[in-house]
Amino acid sequence: MTSGTELFSSIPEVNYQETPPSIQVEEFRKVVQSRRSVRVFTADPIPETIVRECLELALLSPNSSNLQPWEFHWVRSPDKKAKLITYCLSQPAAATAAELIVCVARTQTWKENAAQMLKIFEEARKTPGVQVPAAAVAYYQKLVPFIYGQGALGLLGCAKKLIFWVRGFFKPTPREPTSSSDMNLWAAKTVALAAETLMLSFRAYDYDTCPLEGFDSTKVRRHLELPQDAFPVMIIAAGKRAANGIYGPRIRFDSKQFIKEL
Amino acid sequence: MTSGTELFSSIPEVNYQETPPSIQVEEFRKVVQSRRSVRVFTADPIPETIVRECLELALLSPNSSNLQPWEFHWVRSPDKKAKLITYCLSQPAAATAAELIVCVARTQTWKENAAQMLKIFEEARKTPGVQVPAAAVAYYQKLVPFIYGQGALGLLGCAKKLIFWVRGFFKPTPREPTSSSDMNLWAAKTVALAAETLMLSFRAYDYDTCPLEGFDSTKVRRHLELPQDAFPVMIIAAGKRAANGIYGPRIRFDSKQFIKEL
Repeated sequence: MTSGTELFSSIPEVNYQETPPSIQVEEFRKVVQSRRSVRVFTADPIPETIVRECLELALLSPNSSNLQPWEFHWVRSPDKKAKLITYCLSQPAAATAAELIVCVARTQTWKENAAQMLKIFEEARKTPGVQVPAAAVAYYQKLVPFIYGQGALGLLGCAKKLIFWVRGFFKPTPREPTSSSDMNLWAAKTVALAAETLMLSFRAYDYDTCPLEGFDSTKVRRHLELPQDAFPVMIIAAGKRAANGIYGPRIRFDSKQFIKEL
Repeated sequence: MTSGTELFSSIPEVNYQETPPSIQVEEFRKVVQSRRSVRVFTADPIPETIVRECLELALLSPNSSNLQPWEFHWVRSPDKKAKLITYCLSQPAAATAAELIVCVARTQTWKENAAQMLKIFEEARKTPGVQVPAAAVAYYQKLVPFIYGQGALGLLGCAKKLIFWVRGFFKPTPREPTSSSDMNLWAAKTVALAAETLMLSFRAYDYDTCPLEGFDSTKVRRHLELPQDAFPVMIIAAGKRAANGIYGPRIRFDSKQFIKEL
């Protein structure tokens, strides 16, 4: 573990730079401020290219160790969509939506995705001038399997919990994930980051969304034929807002309740 | 429960409308595209007003049933910040950050927040012309305690699991949350939605961020004196990007791996 944490504490020698563009902040503020949960949509469709662009933007969201434990199931076939609407309890946001996208978390794809990272590093090294820090390779080769692996029957997870607990008396030690519910939380978190980008993207393109949690997850899993390690985090209904699509002014409690300054 | 699901399936009579502003989508795209996880920041501070504006924008994110189970602990005191950096394993993103904000999930504040919603509805009803649908009041009064309450020792949660399982044979039935780990996942999801808005907001204001998961959650909880039901979901390091702040080009696997069309 010591070598593991050292990976984090030193700055690698890299020969790379990205200069950010200048941005009109007011345009961004309008996106966030005008996003509301829209519960009734008009019959207008969303152009396919816009849905695709929004999904591609969502995939640029930050994610845990770049392991990308997310999936977006865009339910387009009319039959499948009709069924999905009933699994969303036929609530108007789902029933009237032009598109329904199920945001899915994967808790086991980190293995193949870590392997993909190593393959990309290997390819990159063949290009003259490109540096791949050894620490990055070591991270995906050694640390990722240790961090995210829970072992058969979760036994490695239990062992890690104990190791971290003991180690924690001597130095700061990351504690999670050490169980299947930790892994669920880990993956769901990353999916939610992307879901937010997706909703803001639709808004930027002048469409609206409603994030749905009120659905039958068992039936949705079966409907999408999700593998064992996959589960729906939320379903995003999207479309053009109807005149009666927003039920009232936005309510937020005093921000002092939520912003704590220490 | 039947009356509960009917709350969802009918459109209330409301006398409210919000016309969205026109937005230059390219400005939003630039925000998402230029957001990178920045791991080294310069010594430049972020003006306090900008941090506040970003936090206020984050609080406009969608959240589960408007129960706002989020908190943002902005660790400003130099002593407390120095300690927090060590709990983040002294990784450069934390050590060089102008600001560190701990995004915290709360799993029990839904009770007082549902009560706040009811109080707001009560006040609103006193204003002539304002309608509060009876279904909305019933939702916070009856359904929210049933959905989010897990009972002593989680017994209500277990009972709900059974009830939902039986009911699910007959009609689509929401299944979660029925346990404390479901509640953790529920709250963390909402926190992540806001965390993404927060990171994009900093980018829009020409600052950068790095979301950190590699920290000692036990020590962070103690450091922030978090109550029993609170836990850190991620820590956002923010500041001005240093020339060596980004370690390489963004890597995303083929989007076909993640976007499934059904």
